[in-house]
Amino acid sequence: MSEVTMVRIYWREGKGSLPELLQRLHEEEQVRGVTVFRGVAGYGGSGVLHTTTLVDLSLDLPLVIEFFDTPERAAQIIADLHDSIGPGHIVSWPARVND
Amino acid sequence: MSEVTMVRIYWREGKGSLPELLQRLHEEEQVRGVTVFRGVAGYGGSGVLHTTTLVDLSLDLPLVIEFFDTPERAAQIIADLHDSIGPGHIVSWPARVND
Amino acid sequence: MSEVTMVRIYWREGKGSLPELLQRLHEEEQVRGVTVFRGVAGYGGSGVLHTTTLVDLSLDLPLVIEFFDTPERAAQIIADLHDSIGPGHIVSWPARVND
Repeated sequence: MSEVTMVRIYWREGKGSLPELLQRLHEEEQVRGVTVFRGVAGYGGSGVLHTTTLVDLSLDLPLVIEFFDTPERAAQIIADLHDSIGPGHIVSWPARVND
Repeated sequence: MSEVTMVRIYWREGKGSLPELLQRLHEEEQVRGVTVFRGVAGYGGSGVLHTTTLVDLSLDLPLVIEFFDTPERAAQIIADLHDSIGPGHIVSWPARVND
Repeated sequence: MSEVTMVRIYWREGKGSLPELLQRLHEEEQVRGVTVFRGVAGYGGSGVLHTTTLVDLSLDLPLVIEFFDTPERAAQIIADLHDSIGPGHIVSWPARVND
């Protein structure tokens, strides 16, 4: 088992530029694996509830971009992303991965 | 970076009252951001496997309600929710958020 | 509150045999609850970006299989799954559950 840092970035579909963020994580930060999850409901700083139904799939839904990396690399990536993501949207914690 | 507590509440669509729970988190508990994720498969205490396909979207699928807050507020919210959510369905751990 | 270990297994739809894995977790490992989440985008070791749109739902999307159990049982399950899941795909960390 190796020590890693789990990172979750809270995003919103309407913010756009998710492909840019993924490309940045892949090419510049060289994170080996990233998964993006879409929430089905939620609310953010605005307090406006975002939700979806089968007939209403185009709303501004929450997204979470998740990855893990070594503690040193994760700390550097979080510092690199801080300016473009903004405060209060990058959560991280220590974990272990099988190897 | 600030210390926070991540909280994940395991729910099921058929339990209903998700909007009530979100409203309670928003208005009474004043959690600043909440995201709800829908699982595509899973099983709970009943041991019955719940799954979905493109032609079968109405099943009783698992939901996870996720948020983070200060350790003190998160502990209070977990205590407040315990009775209505039931034991074994609220998981939490320490994390950090960029600020 | 009881100490538990959160476990997240990173999988991919095209790998197949998800029902087998769930059955194994349920019957052999006797995990009481498991939730499977499907990512809407991501990339893995291959570096190939996987994504989806409403008209393109059949891609090889990332899946995460999540559960929690006592630290002792989780450690055993991770060891049992290591050979079939492969290195670098099972992440775990300590958490607490209400009880």
